[in-house]
Amino acid sequence: MPPLVLTMGEPAGIGGELAFAAWSRRAAGVPCFALLDDPERLGALARSLGLKLPIRPIEHAADAEAVWASALPVLPIPLAARVVPGKPDPANAGAIIRAIERAVALVTAGEASALVTNPIQKQVLIEAGFRHPGHTEFLADLAGPGAVPVMMLTCPGLRVVPITIHQSLQSAIADLSIDKITTVARITAAALTRDFGIARPTLAVSGLNPHAGEGGAFGREEIDVIAPAIQRLCAEGIEVEGPLPADTMFHVRARQTYDAALCMYHDQALIPIKTIDFERGVNVTLGLPFVRTSPDHGTALNLAGTGKASPESLIAALVTADQMARTRAAAR
Amino acid sequence: MPPLVLTMGEPAGIGGELAFAAWSRRAAGVPCFALLDDPERLGALARSLGLKLPIRPIEHAADAEAVWASALPVLPIPLAARVVPGKPDPANAGAIIRAIERAVALVTAGEASALVTNPIQKQVLIEAGFRHPGHTEFLADLAGPGAVPVMMLTCPGLRVVPITIHQSLQSAIADLSIDKITTVARITAAALTRDFGIARPTLAVSGLNPHAGEGGAFGREEIDVIAPAIQRLCAEGIEVEGPLPADTMFHVRARQTYDAALCMYHDQALIPIKTIDFERGVNVTLGLPFVRTSPDHGTALNLAGTGKASPESLIAALVTADQMARTRAAAR
Repeated sequence: MPPLVLTMGEPAGIGGELAFAAWSRRAAGVPCFALLDDPERLGALARSLGLKLPIRPIEHAADAEAVWASALPVLPIPLAARVVPGKPDPANAGAIIRAIERAVALVTAGEASALVTNPIQKQVLIEAGFRHPGHTEFLADLAGPGAVPVMMLTCPGLRVVPITIHQSLQSAIADLSIDKITTVARITAAALTRDFGIARPTLAVSGLNPHAGEGGAFGREEIDVIAPAIQRLCAEGIEVEGPLPADTMFHVRARQTYDAALCMYHDQALIPIKTIDFERGVNVTLGLPFVRTSPDHGTALNLAGTGKASPESLIAALVTADQMARTRAAAR
Repeated sequence: MPPLVLTMGEPAGIGGELAFAAWSRRAAGVPCFALLDDPERLGALARSLGLKLPIRPIEHAADAEAVWASALPVLPIPLAARVVPGKPDPANAGAIIRAIERAVALVTAGEASALVTNPIQKQVLIEAGFRHPGHTEFLADLAGPGAVPVMMLTCPGLRVVPITIHQSLQSAIADLSIDKITTVARITAAALTRDFGIARPTLAVSGLNPHAGEGGAFGREEIDVIAPAIQRLCAEGIEVEGPLPADTMFHVRARQTYDAALCMYHDQALIPIKTIDFERGVNVTLGLPFVRTSPDHGTALNLAGTGKASPESLIAALVTADQMARTRAAAR
C-alpha cells in the first residue's frame, strides 16, 4: 500500500502539531503518511514546542514508508512567509492551495492511498483569490467532472450523513427534495460497500419534523418528500428504513440497527455524533474518486503553537482513511 | 412529607405493570406513592403477570405511608369496562380523566407532595369528548389561571427545555420570538432555583441554524431573535449563555457548564437527551403551581400486559418528583 498524504492546512493553525502527535504514536498503529508541508517551518514549530522530532524531506510519496520509523516524512511545499501560530497570513495561501493540489495529484496517480486534509481558514484563502465555496468543493473540482461530494461523519459506532449542510434551517427545509435524498443515499450506500466493506448496507432515514411528522399532524415533508424518496430507493434494492423520529434514532441500541443515518439537516446529524464522541469524530467525503477524510475540527487558532490541541480526531481520520483505502484495494 | 400520587394513565397501556415494578423496588429507594387506579383491574393484571403483589385500597392519600412497606396503596378510581392490555376502550375515558382530576386536587390541597402521571392515549380521550390539546394542557387548565406549562426533560447530567414543541419544524421557526424565549427562560430559571435548589442557575441557549448562524451567513434568527432575548434575560439578572452552536453543546464536558439547555425546537432538545440516556429520561412540567413529572415514553400498547416494558423512566420520574417536592418544601 502506498502511504497516506496529509495536507498542511492552515499553517498558523493546529495542523502541524497534530501531525507531530500522530507520528509520535506510530507504534500504537497510526498508519504511515507523508505530510505536505514546509520542512523548515515544521522544524521551527517542533523546536518551539520543545520536541525532538526528526523531520525528513522526501522526494516521492513512496519514500515515506522507509523513513516512517525514524522520522516524519515531509513532501516539501515551501511557504512564502514565516508562520506565526494563531496569525494566518494570506501570503501563504498559495502554498496551502498547492499542498491540496499536490495531494489530489498523488492520490489520483495512485502514489498515495488516500487523502487526509488538515483544516484550512477559508477566509484567508478567499482574500488571496480562492473562489470555491469550501475545502470539499475545491477537492471535487480537482477530482474532475462527475464528483458529487457527500459529507459523512463517523465515530466508533455511528455514521451520519446530513442531506443539507451549511445553510439556514429555513432554507434547508425548502431545499429538501426527493432527488437530493435519493442522490445522497445512493452515494452513501455505494461507499458503505466499497470503502467500508458492508455488502448490503442498511440506511436509516430521519424525518424532518418532531415524531417524523406524526402522520402529517406536525408537517407534511415526511409524506410528500421523505417517504417517496425512501420508496424509490427501496425499489432500487437499497435497504432503507424511515422516515424515523430523529430523537429515538441514536441511542445505543437504535444505532446498532443501521450502517448509516441519513439526516435532513446539519444539527440533526451533528448533535448526536458530537454528543456521543466529541474527540474522535472524523469527517469523510464520499462521492469523490479517491478516499478523503479530515478531522472534525477547525484550525483552532487560539490553541495553535501551544501543543494542547487533542490529536484524537486527526489520528482517527488517518486510521479511517487507511482502513477505507485497504477495503477499497482489497475488493479490486 | 405526604406521598406522591401516580395516575393510572391509559389502563390498556403499560402504566399498571410499571407501577408494580416501581413498588417492588421500594427497598431500593423508590419513594412512597399512592396509585389512582382500579384495585380490581390491578389485581387481575398482577395475577395475569404471575405476580404475588398485595394491592391495598386506601381512603386518603395520607394512609399510603403506613401501607407502603407491605402493599401497593391504591386510591380507588373504578373503571367502567374490563381492561384488555393493548386495546384502549373509550368507555374508560371518564375514569382516566377522573384520576387526573383527583390527583390535581390532592396536590393542590397539599395531601400529596407531587404528581406523577402515567401516559395516556390522547385519541381515546378525544373520542370520549376530551377537548384539551394534550395531557399537560389539561393539567394547566386544572391548575387554574396563570399556569404556563414548560416542558423540561432531564436525565442524569442533562436538563433540556425545548422552546417550541409539537409542531412542524417550519412553524417552529416561524413561531420563535423574543417573548417566547424569555418567558420559557424565566420559568426555567425560577424552577431550577425553587425545585432543584440551584441558587444561581446558568442557562445555555442554542442557536437555531448550523453553527448558530455563523454571524448571519446561515440565517438571521440568532441576530434578530435569540441574541436580543438573551440580552433581555441578562439585563434581568439571569445567567444566560448563547446563542451556542447546538452540535457542540451536549458532549460530556460542555454539559457540565450549564444547569439547563434551552433549545429552539423539539428534536434539538430531544436528540441529545435520548441519545445519552434512553431509559431514564424524565419529563418535568415547570410553570405549574405543583410539581409534576412523567416518564418519557408513551403507553406502549404493544408491550402492555407482557411485563417486558422497562420501569426505569417511571422510577426516575418518581424519584425526581420526590426530590423536587422536598427541595421546594425545604425552602419554605
